[in-house]
Amino acid sequence: MSQTPTRLRAKTKLRRLPASLTLLSVQVDRGQGRERLYQQIRESIRNAILSGQIGGRLPPTREMATALGVNRATVSRAYQELEADGLVASSGARGTVVVAADPPMSGGSGSHGPGAPSWVSTLPPVADTGLRADPTLIRDITHNSRRPEFISFAEAAPGPELIPAKRIAEAIGDGLARWGPRVLGYAPVEGLEILREALTQTLAKPLLREGESVMVVSGATQGLALAARALIESGDEVAVEAPTYFGILQTFALAGARLIGVPVDRHGMRTDQLEALLSQRRVRLIIVQSRFQNPTGALMSPERRAHLLLIARRHGVPVLEDDIYGALDLDGGAPPPLKQDDHAGSVVYVSSFSKTISPGLRVGWVVGPQPVINRMVVAKQFSDLSTSAIGQMVVADLLSSGDYASHIRWLAGENRTRRATLLAALSALAGRIDVTFVPGGGSHLWCRLGPGLDSRSVAVAAIRRKVALTPGEAFYPPTTMRGETGQDRVRLSFTAVPPERMEEGIQRLAEAIESLPVAGAGLTGTTGVLV
Amino acid sequence: MSQTPTRLRAKTKLRRLPASLTLLSVQVDRGQGRERLYQQIRESIRNAILSGQIGGRLPPTREMATALGVNRATVSRAYQELEADGLVASSGARGTVVVAADPPMSGGSGSHGPGAPSWVSTLPPVADTGLRADPTLIRDITHNSRRPEFISFAEAAPGPELIPAKRIAEAIGDGLARWGPRVLGYAPVEGLEILREALTQTLAKPLLREGESVMVVSGATQGLALAARALIESGDEVAVEAPTYFGILQTFALAGARLIGVPVDRHGMRTDQLEALLSQRRVRLIIVQSRFQNPTGALMSPERRAHLLLIARRHGVPVLEDDIYGALDLDGGAPPPLKQDDHAGSVVYVSSFSKTISPGLRVGWVVGPQPVINRMVVAKQFSDLSTSAIGQMVVADLLSSGDYASHIRWLAGENRTRRATLLAALSALAGRIDVTFVPGGGSHLWCRLGPGLDSRSVAVAAIRRKVALTPGEAFYPPTTMRGETGQDRVRLSFTAVPPERMEEGIQRLAEAIESLPVAGAGLTGTTGVLV
Repeated sequence: MSQTPTRLRAKTKLRRLPASLTLLSVQVDRGQGRERLYQQIRESIRNAILSGQIGGRLPPTREMATALGVNRATVSRAYQELEADGLVASSGARGTVVVAADPPMSGGSGSHGPGAPSWVSTLPPVADTGLRADPTLIRDITHNSRRPEFISFAEAAPGPELIPAKRIAEAIGDGLARWGPRVLGYAPVEGLEILREALTQTLAKPLLREGESVMVVSGATQGLALAARALIESGDEVAVEAPTYFGILQTFALAGARLIGVPVDRHGMRTDQLEALLSQRRVRLIIVQSRFQNPTGALMSPERRAHLLLIARRHGVPVLEDDIYGALDLDGGAPPPLKQDDHAGSVVYVSSFSKTISPGLRVGWVVGPQPVINRMVVAKQFSDLSTSAIGQMVVADLLSSGDYASHIRWLAGENRTRRATLLAALSALAGRIDVTFVPGGGSHLWCRLGPGLDSRSVAVAAIRRKVALTPGEAFYPPTTMRGETGQDRVRLSFTAVPPERMEEGIQRLAEAIESLPVAGAGLTGTTGVLV
Repeated sequence: MSQTPTRLRAKTKLRRLPASLTLLSVQVDRGQGRERLYQQIRESIRNAILSGQIGGRLPPTREMATALGVNRATVSRAYQELEADGLVASSGARGTVVVAADPPMSGGSGSHGPGAPSWVSTLPPVADTGLRADPTLIRDITHNSRRPEFISFAEAAPGPELIPAKRIAEAIGDGLARWGPRVLGYAPVEGLEILREALTQTLAKPLLREGESVMVVSGATQGLALAARALIESGDEVAVEAPTYFGILQTFALAGARLIGVPVDRHGMRTDQLEALLSQRRVRLIIVQSRFQNPTGALMSPERRAHLLLIARRHGVPVLEDDIYGALDLDGGAPPPLKQDDHAGSVVYVSSFSKTISPGLRVGWVVGPQPVINRMVVAKQFSDLSTSAIGQMVVADLLSSGDYASHIRWLAGENRTRRATLLAALSALAGRIDVTFVPGGGSHLWCRLGPGLDSRSVAVAAIRRKVALTPGEAFYPPTTMRGETGQDRVRLSFTAVPPERMEEGIQRLAEAIESLPVAGAGLTGTTGVLV
């Protein structure tokens, strides 16, 4: 799974952490042929925890990294592994804390966490995505933000009031009556015929070229994961938008992609920059959200759409279009998916019904050239055999009855109100959180932080005040053409919060920002506050 | 993803296929540093198809392999790739047939299949699992067998008559009324709290040790796929039962495992042989089905269960228990899952509700040490974000109401009838298909073929007569301790066929076997008939 990186050739070095940090002694041996640095750090801390030498809070990653003379990412990775091992827990407010300070269990010297068997210490490492914001941070924010006392500008989903639960229940009742229990058996890997047919007659109709087909997936995330398997090999370079949806970054980083971020402005991906990249590097895939890009909300201009398709064809590089927000066209008049203009078969298209009907259905869909679909079907067979039949039945019914189309129109109205309400409330934060531009659709406002504020600190302070947003750095790959990091950006989603709670949410956010130390007063270290 | 194998060092060789086979000329260059052999074969055939030089049927893989002086698996792999590319189609009856004999499209020399873009030819290869029965064969049999005119002894699922569709619809209605549309939002990655709680109170209760937890997965297949990510790295040796469920073989082969088959008899895995293996090789994982093993139906004896746990602990090797058939206890008195005896935390447990409630729900569950669960949760986040909320709601309701337990009892009665009816019908095939032993539960009869019959030929002939069974070779990994191949075995499932159709199914099977050439009359080549 993981490739051993070029090993450091320096001779053995032992360093000690300053005593002011902790009594913990971590040994790092850079000799050739030794295990990876983060593994050594993990091992040292693990032993110290299990032998009861340390407890309480671990040093912040930055301090630990400085003390050891290693990259901060290396320390982060070691901490991540320790967390996966159940030895430490990280929480935004408290940093990384030892949770298993008990002495080893009866299992003896190999013991690992509370009662864990000896083999646990030889488990393969947790996926190293090399990303700025580790998956745990995002998951923590998301989980926190779903608690009822929270107001969540982090959740990129329709709020419960926007989910047509009655219509869904009806569709299930009708579907079971119409197709009988047979529909609850194993569905074909590529999707129930009734749904593939409904898609072909509606949403997929203008997208399908000769030699292409539709498959059903268990949400757009699965579509991305299968596309990663079908389209790239580990080590391939992949061009992504910077910023872009962190799930794209995570999924492709996990598949071994080397991600390169191409700038996005309000007119979408900067295809001039992409063209420069394509002529310099061997890019194997371009991932783009042409409509209501996440997080910026950008709608790609007609010129750039045409340019993108031209250069993709010219360089023989496939395009993966993630159109999950495309249907959330609040102001009307959005162009069709990029895929519809794709006469050369350059584009593999992924979308889902998570943002329009319900995320809980776990139904997405893919259109692409048959050879790609064939590969994705094989990968799906090994991933989950098939997609929930009930979810497929619901979507098939809503599409073929025409109720999906009318629901989308109703939804646009509701979301227009939410967008306007959030924009109005945000004016109270002018100078501290400013919207970069007002998007014509999608789910998010992409905002710039005022001077002295950084996105992680704001996100962590917000959680303490029971309001959630997503820090900008989650949306940037480690490598970008312009070196942006997103530390001065945050994303606020407006679809999950009822309009009547938005003002209060922004009030809490204002208090959170107030609570932060003044810029330049010693705590400007961008990410040091969290760890 | 794929490791380049040791390259052949022989100098360039060109060979031609005998003209009697085809006019196709395939060049194989074994020079060091050249692309892999199967890629070269794929490329030659591709060019011949696209230039219109050949059409119709490709030579059988065995003949092609002999003509080229390469391994038959190499040719199979090339054919598999061509099929994924949409250039050929394989069907049991007709062999491998060119489907895109049209001259190249306007796309020019890079064109690939009907209208496929040039980059398709650089797609990474379809997963090479190295298994005897490629995934396409299994999928073909399954798909065929689901057509209404088919009688399917291949489908390992409850027939529609056995799925409690009304109760499921009721659970959905009640659940939506009770929890509201909120339940249709994004579920937590590890599962809805209501389902994890219901599991903890019922099925998982006796299995959970301190330091362990339950997570929900999108069916047992996903449980296996995530466990592969969490427990092994590419190249690791994994001990599996031989025979075992082909999905286990496929999923772990795809994850890069080197599978070693340990014999199974009617008392389960031969743990004496496993012990010998553990002392000789560095096995990183043992996969076992202790209850109503697929395909044999074996129930592991108390002695072997204890022995397995002992040697797993002694060697520090984790055990992955797949208990998907455990609840189908037809005769009563089956022991609890192996996991329940696991006091050392050696066992990671996977099960699902596909065989007991409905496969269309896509709900499974896992119990294991927290560090393993943590890793599986991260892997799930990148795979499909979460499991269908509706499916989770249904299972939570059935478990907590107690209706699951009563449904299981009813199901056992129905399946006893099906097992008895199939056994009675099979007596007509004595000497040609003989049941190895009558299992006390599960879904299958594991059968021995009479002399001169081989499993693929029988499976293919059966499909022609609209009856389906699964060829034995699908259940064996490439390497087994005893060298079995399963060519003399077939699996017949009894849960998907209504009792009143079984006799007719066996009648069709008898006709299929009648239609096969007599043993020794020139067509005994085991797999040559299919390709």
